[in-house]
Amino acid sequence: MNVLIVYAHPEPKSFDADMRDRAVQILTREGHAVVVSDLYAMRFKAQLDADDFTDPADEIYFNLQKEQLHAAETGTFAADILAEQRKLLWSNMLILQFPLWWYSVPAIMKGWIDRVLAYGFAYGQGRNLKGRRAMLVMTTGGQVQPFTMEKQNILSAMLDHVQRGTLHFCGFDVLPPFAVYGAANANADQREQFMVQYTQLLRGLHLIDPIAYG
Amino acid sequence: MNVLIVYAHPEPKSFDADMRDRAVQILTREGHAVVVSDLYAMRFKAQLDADDFTDPADEIYFNLQKEQLHAAETGTFAADILAEQRKLLWSNMLILQFPLWWYSVPAIMKGWIDRVLAYGFAYGQGRNLKGRRAMLVMTTGGQVQPFTMEKQNILSAMLDHVQRGTLHFCGFDVLPPFAVYGAANANADQREQFMVQYTQLLRGLHLIDPIAYG
Repeated sequence: MNVLIVYAHPEPKSFDADMRDRAVQILTREGHAVVVSDLYAMRFKAQLDADDFTDPADEIYFNLQKEQLHAAETGTFAADILAEQRKLLWSNMLILQFPLWWYSVPAIMKGWIDRVLAYGFAYGQGRNLKGRRAMLVMTTGGQVQPFTMEKQNILSAMLDHVQRGTLHFCGFDVLPPFAVYGAANANADQREQFMVQYTQLLRGLHLIDPIAYG
Repeated sequence: MNVLIVYAHPEPKSFDADMRDRAVQILTREGHAVVVSDLYAMRFKAQLDADDFTDPADEIYFNLQKEQLHAAETGTFAADILAEQRKLLWSNMLILQFPLWWYSVPAIMKGWIDRVLAYGFAYGQGRNLKGRRAMLVMTTGGQVQPFTMEKQNILSAMLDHVQRGTLHFCGFDVLPPFAVYGAANANADQREQFMVQYTQLLRGLHLIDPIAYG
């Protein structure tokens, strides 16, 4: 597979960073090609605005879908958006890796979603990203303990706006999410346990069935 | 009431901007005090990072909750965060107004949530923002037609990560959301209809029952 890991964590030495590096190592060993977009390291622009469009369709009034469609048709998105879109088109597996903040992605990753998954590129006008798989990989705050089934169901429902409303809407087959609970408070043994689980998951990534959406 | 409107839209002449101005006008006329945080106009920093903390608790390793708690205890958040927190403490009604992007808030507003609703200020350590009301006001893309009940239920479930997972978690009483469907494609008559509805809502804002969460 060609795997794009879009990664966002403000601490370069975090457990999240270890997981990112492990994913690159394991997936490469398994024969996959891997590209990482490290949004904090790239200082990725989070807010979507008129500067995202180098040849505005309308300089007087900013209509988002109009600008995105025009930019998609003429290839005039800002360079950082074009680069991410090229990576997406190259890939057939997308991993969004992040610390769960407020049951969603950090703002810098929401910016990646807002700006890169543009109308006329990722959806609309008959376009979509079908034929690709996607998976959320996240760490949560709090204590090191598996969420109860009730908590897992709440988390899964809360993530619906990303998994179903965003990724599935754009045509991705969405795999079940992988969550590490309480990563910041885990000791070395617990972290190694998480890594073993993640490594097993990564080795069988191509075999996992996507979530069945009605 | 003291009303804080946190507003995010990239086009200063948008229908969203008209709604913001109408809210200020109506609420002021009704005798309320109103403050607006216009995130795009303020060029509000979206990404949460180490620069948010002027007196780091740990300069070697960035642990988010540790930094937020320390900053809350010592008053050492970055100035833009402190200013928003002061507005929140002053207010007893919060309106988050935004165009719905990917069933969530725009990245710049997610940044406001990530950075301002900090551990030790908005939740944790016995702190919360109880005694305040909050409401989402949003415009959606697509056609000018009321969502079917099924679509409204989907939208409501998708917004749970903001309404329940964020605002209710911080202690807010969350009012039912107000959505304008297809604002970008509405004609002048339709827009005036929306404004009439919004005006009525604003006049009775203090009387609306919050969502009952189990």
